[in-house]
Amino acid sequence: MMTKQEAADAVCGARVERGVTWAQLAEAVGRPVVWTTAAVLGQHPMSAAEAEAAASALELGQDVVKALQLQPTRGALGAAVPVDPTVYRLYEVLQVYGPTIKELIHEEFGDGIMSAINFRLDVKRVPDPEGDRVEIVLNGKFLPYQW
Amino acid sequence: MMTKQEAADAVCGARVERGVTWAQLAEAVGRPVVWTTAAVLGQHPMSAAEAEAAASALELGQDVVKALQLQPTRGALGAAVPVDPTVYRLYEVLQVYGPTIKELIHEEFGDGIMSAINFRLDVKRVPDPEGDRVEIVLNGKFLPYQW
Amino acid sequence: MMTKQEAADAVCGARVERGVTWAQLAEAVGRPVVWTTAAVLGQHPMSAAEAEAAASALELGQDVVKALQLQPTRGALGAAVPVDPTVYRLYEVLQVYGPTIKELIHEEFGDGIMSAINFRLDVKRVPDPEGDRVEIVLNGKFLPYQW
Amino acid sequence: MMTKQEAADAVCGARVERGVTWAQLAEAVGRPVVWTTAAVLGQHPMSAAEAEAAASALELGQDVVKALQLQPTRGALGAAVPVDPTVYRLYEVLQVYGPTIKELIHEEFGDGIMSAINFRLDVKRVPDPEGDRVEIVLNGKFLPYQW
Amino acid sequence: MMTKQEAADAVCGARVERGVTWAQLAEAVGRPVVWTTAAVLGQHPMSAAEAEAAASALELGQDVVKALQLQPTRGALGAAVPVDPTVYRLYEVLQVYGPTIKELIHEEFGDGIMSAINFRLDVKRVPDPEGDRVEIVLNGKFLPYQW
Amino acid sequence: MMTKQEAADAVCGARVERGVTWAQLAEAVGRPVVWTTAAVLGQHPMSAAEAEAAASALELGQDVVKALQLQPTRGALGAAVPVDPTVYRLYEVLQVYGPTIKELIHEEFGDGIMSAINFRLDVKRVPDPEGDRVEIVLNGKFLPYQW
Amino acid sequence: MMTKQEAADAVCGARVERGVTWAQLAEAVGRPVVWTTAAVLGQHPMSAAEAEAAASALELGQDVVKALQLQPTRGALGAAVPVDPTVYRLYEVLQVYGPTIKELIHEEFGDGIMSAINFRLDVKRVPDPEGDRVEIVLNGKFLPYQW
Amino acid sequence: MMTKQEAADAVCGARVERGVTWAQLAEAVGRPVVWTTAAVLGQHPMSAAEAEAAASALELGQDVVKALQLQPTRGALGAAVPVDPTVYRLYEVLQVYGPTIKELIHEEFGDGIMSAINFRLDVKRVPDPEGDRVEIVLNGKFLPYQW
Amino acid sequence: MMTKQEAADAVCGARVERGVTWAQLAEAVGRPVVWTTAAVLGQHPMSAAEAEAAASALELGQDVVKALQLQPTRGALGAAVPVDPTVYRLYEVLQVYGPTIKELIHEEFGDGIMSAINFRLDVKRVPDPEGDRVEIVLNGKFLPYQW
Amino acid sequence: MMTKQEAADAVCGARVERGVTWAQLAEAVGRPVVWTTAAVLGQHPMSAAEAEAAASALELGQDVVKALQLQPTRGALGAAVPVDPTVYRLYEVLQVYGPTIKELIHEEFGDGIMSAINFRLDVKRVPDPEGDRVEIVLNGKFLPYQW
Repeated sequence: MMTKQEAADAVCGARVERGVTWAQLAEAVGRPVVWTTAAVLGQHPMSAAEAEAAASALELGQDVVKALQLQPTRGALGAAVPVDPTVYRLYEVLQVYGPTIKELIHEEFGDGIMSAINFRLDVKRVPDPEGDRVEIVLNGKFLPYQW
Repeated sequence: MMTKQEAADAVCGARVERGVTWAQLAEAVGRPVVWTTAAVLGQHPMSAAEAEAAASALELGQDVVKALQLQPTRGALGAAVPVDPTVYRLYEVLQVYGPTIKELIHEEFGDGIMSAINFRLDVKRVPDPEGDRVEIVLNGKFLPYQW
Repeated sequence: MMTKQEAADAVCGARVERGVTWAQLAEAVGRPVVWTTAAVLGQHPMSAAEAEAAASALELGQDVVKALQLQPTRGALGAAVPVDPTVYRLYEVLQVYGPTIKELIHEEFGDGIMSAINFRLDVKRVPDPEGDRVEIVLNGKFLPYQW
Repeated sequence: MMTKQEAADAVCGARVERGVTWAQLAEAVGRPVVWTTAAVLGQHPMSAAEAEAAASALELGQDVVKALQLQPTRGALGAAVPVDPTVYRLYEVLQVYGPTIKELIHEEFGDGIMSAINFRLDVKRVPDPEGDRVEIVLNGKFLPYQW
Repeated sequence: MMTKQEAADAVCGARVERGVTWAQLAEAVGRPVVWTTAAVLGQHPMSAAEAEAAASALELGQDVVKALQLQPTRGALGAAVPVDPTVYRLYEVLQVYGPTIKELIHEEFGDGIMSAINFRLDVKRVPDPEGDRVEIVLNGKFLPYQW
Repeated sequence: MMTKQEAADAVCGARVERGVTWAQLAEAVGRPVVWTTAAVLGQHPMSAAEAEAAASALELGQDVVKALQLQPTRGALGAAVPVDPTVYRLYEVLQVYGPTIKELIHEEFGDGIMSAINFRLDVKRVPDPEGDRVEIVLNGKFLPYQW
Repeated sequence: MMTKQEAADAVCGARVERGVTWAQLAEAVGRPVVWTTAAVLGQHPMSAAEAEAAASALELGQDVVKALQLQPTRGALGAAVPVDPTVYRLYEVLQVYGPTIKELIHEEFGDGIMSAINFRLDVKRVPDPEGDRVEIVLNGKFLPYQW
Repeated sequence: MMTKQEAADAVCGARVERGVTWAQLAEAVGRPVVWTTAAVLGQHPMSAAEAEAAASALELGQDVVKALQLQPTRGALGAAVPVDPTVYRLYEVLQVYGPTIKELIHEEFGDGIMSAINFRLDVKRVPDPEGDRVEIVLNGKFLPYQW
Repeated sequence: MMTKQEAADAVCGARVERGVTWAQLAEAVGRPVVWTTAAVLGQHPMSAAEAEAAASALELGQDVVKALQLQPTRGALGAAVPVDPTVYRLYEVLQVYGPTIKELIHEEFGDGIMSAINFRLDVKRVPDPEGDRVEIVLNGKFLPYQW
Repeated sequence: MMTKQEAADAVCGARVERGVTWAQLAEAVGRPVVWTTAAVLGQHPMSAAEAEAAASALELGQDVVKALQLQPTRGALGAAVPVDPTVYRLYEVLQVYGPTIKELIHEEFGDGIMSAINFRLDVKRVPDPEGDRVEIVLNGKFLPYQW
């Protein structure tokens, strides 16, 4: 049986070969682009219809369709601290602002967390005359500590 | 000379003792609340005026005023992977969505990164009938790889 | 200002000196014994009334009362893998049964997690003629992955 | 000779292909579902009859039958700290409540441990109007320190 | 309150000052020498009588008597791999013979472990014309895996 | 050329297939069972005659005979801290009693170590009405520090 | 699809086989030699023309041409601390002079960093009668902390 | 006796208090600014005259003078991977360009290293209309591998 | 292209098969035995003549000849701390005597290091009536810190 | 009671204050300079006479005399991999030549180790017209593996 990693590699290869963008793939699948990309990279299970749509858009076979539906074991970094500079900057934000975010969640909501499960994320371009900006929006349900 | 960590402890203690919120402290300082909190926790240097305003709002002395102006050695986690659940969820987002964010930055902007230096961050409450949500917005300038 | 760790040490010392059990302390505080023990050890913030009750039961002062109410930075092991044998056995359970639990949660509930925030835990003695048994019950709300 | 890991992969693949649940497989094997799942994932050796029953339910061959009977080298996480969110929550419980559980075992039983060898574990759904809950019950013999 | 580590330091200092051997201390306490040494070094709790006997043999005070009775958090190495050569040789034995011991326990007893809780240990001199030998005997109850 | 690990895998597979115990294999080889098991698992080089005897008892070929004679790079755990419970208990003994053993070696012999080279080890069953016990005897020459 | 690592191995092999220097390859590609070497080793994506030029200079095929254009996941050390002596010396410079460089950047420019993205690097020979010297020039845009 | 770290803290405190720049301190000491900064931060021993000059410029006492002359144990990061962003960028350069630098040193000089002992380093501002740049020059003697 | 590791494996296999000692191989190559062994194990590049001589002495082909000439990425332990007992003893010497050696180099030579590049090493047998001794001589040029 | 580390600090401080070299201290103690330095740094216990001689040469008190006689817990690096360049070069030698030394010990002596207990070490200056050299001689008894 094909693993989710092998399916991800197959999709990524076909995507580059055929010049299909993540946005186009997401449109074919009918889900947001961040979710679709994460699912293809092995972090979310797709429904049968979504997997069929993804494979069909890239002319890939049933082994890929099946693998995309498997329940994943999540965790994409492969190391505790990422070394790729684009990914590392997110870790740096955590190092510099992590406890700050914790303080402000507690001040605004009380003792609890922002869910990473009931959660969505968006990546956007914000035009700016001094150079366009990347905006990443994390949006998760507040979960109060409840006994 | 007082260290930035000692100044942070002094401010945090006084803040709790006097019932001053981070939002009120930020207003006194005249800067956004995320920046102010991070600065007090030792991640940014304050200007003399900002440090005076912060200390004055909490009736703290000149040693705190001086320490808040010192250039910090940044990095607030104290470990590679944070164990506090509120902070860990941010790390989990990185584990699940890190490579996805990288793919989408490259698709939208080309080869480069979201700056964590020319950068701002906001933490907001988003009302929701199924339970209010935490929204964290990361906003950084796109920096293309340039030789 | 007294830290939560110093308050925990003070409570633990007074508890041994005065022969007060965790169960008695929990009764005084009016909360379940697991929650009370965890709170005293610095993993949950107490309300003012709870902190007063705990300190009063052990004849401790206002610095302890205040520290018990502080928002904690959670995480009690002090290391990635615990070495104390009583605690290690829990880690061993995770090593042997972790992926099994994951499989069965997914089979029963679908893709999601057992919340560790909307969560309670109980530790019980189960009499048994071949030797009494320890029963630890973890009970957390199922949280489905929701975009 | 087939390894236990290869047998686990074969069973998991066949289970998905044929739509056999862990509960059905456990029924075929005649053992509790947690034990059966753990055994298939390579954490317990099966008897010859159990291995035959498992393989037969999934139409797998004698190499799988033999591998399922091999004495395992236990330990399923592959890393000191698990990154999959469903498994991580169990680690988080250990970080937040580990020393609390230790205190309460000592208070109730004296110096000793909950065995992870003379041990059973159950995973259950507990219906709840505010959202069903996952209940995980750890049940191990108390072993007092004895010289 | 004195910690177990401080009590261990006090006993070790007094032992050297007064020229009391571990064997003599064990005799005073009325327990085997390995157990007594481990208890003083903070790995086992002493009974009140044992602690009184130990402190009295070394003319130490009630704070030591109390600390020796505290429930320990066990684990004496302070690092995953010990660097002191006398202790490292034991780790080397584990590296070279660990899986061998596992094989032979399984062959002789079936699936299970040697308990480290229902356990005793002895260290002896074995005279030998080619140089006396150290004999360390580990003796623990066999615990079969039982569901 | 076959590696020692491949030879170990071949021997272990054949041993299970043919139902040959470690004790029988050791008898065929003419060496103690602990030594023989360790040698087959790749921790000691066999003489030509021993390797021939081992391979012959299991009907294995000359590549195995040669590999069993190679000088090993020792170290069988594959990680600093073992996670298999049977092996971990030995590590736990080291964590709890390591410094105790050091103290007692120094008290009895003076400054030095128990050799792990001029060394033998035995694993035995000790019958006991309350449950049979595993006895592991480490026996190594005392080596005094000598300049 | 060929990975960037496989393409790097193919280029390095062909380079040695054909006696093509990095300088010659860079000339063929029309980019600086440091950039070209880093790109071939998998740290920068090449344009189609650059990849064609590189492959053509070494008589390699279209799979290499495609792989050299892929967006890389950067990070070439394979470990947190490099052990090759030539690379380690750079890490040693960081250990000895890292905080010094930080102090001097802050003194000269204020709070900010030297960009590693808007960045170029040169490696030169500096003739010297007492032995020629290696000069490595790091040149990156100063980025001030900006909210 | 004052340690080098205490002396560094004293100098850094006095430097901020009195508004003395690293450049001014280096001028007082009569050595390059990078060397002087590194020496004060504890990475090089100063001569008696240099230490006197440094202490005198900051009105510090003989304990500082002595400590600045002590032979250091070098290594300033305090962790394998630095988390401060200004220092991390240098580590990132090593991750992205380390093997590239190795290739080019070998191509130009043959098998050997750039010395980090017979070595000097400079940090400069390079004016640039698109934003001034930081230039860091590493200059070390080439040392060929010689048996 | 054959890697240096594959060449090392080929040489080691052929050496055992043909009964060629390292000393004989070194004689064939015309270099010291330590250097030759290290070069074959992948730590030094051989000249074309040396590689031809080595391959010819063992009847190996041109792929080995080429691989032995490649520039190595050095570092042979594969882990930070070696576990093979023969190699570990060298690490133990470093743990026990490392800072001592540093003190004595500084006392005799001043601030600097023993080069590991301009360096040679010898391993000798020293006959001794109480048991022959291994003598390892490290000989490296002293390099003073020079700016 | 003074610890060995505090005694080491006291001796090192006094040695610098009074201008006493390690060689002079060793002469006063009557032992080789490497042994004496290691003993003072806490790696060997001194006899009463040696400790008296060392303390007397530096005019230190009875607390130092006692501490120098204590049995040490050996291991001086404080980290798995040393970062001080003078000490690191020894680790680099181990990385580059460790397996080579192992091969040559086995070739010359058979299966066994160089003892690090029955062991002596010397550090010498070797005059050389191209720059004097550091020679470090490790001399340890060969210990064959013996069951």
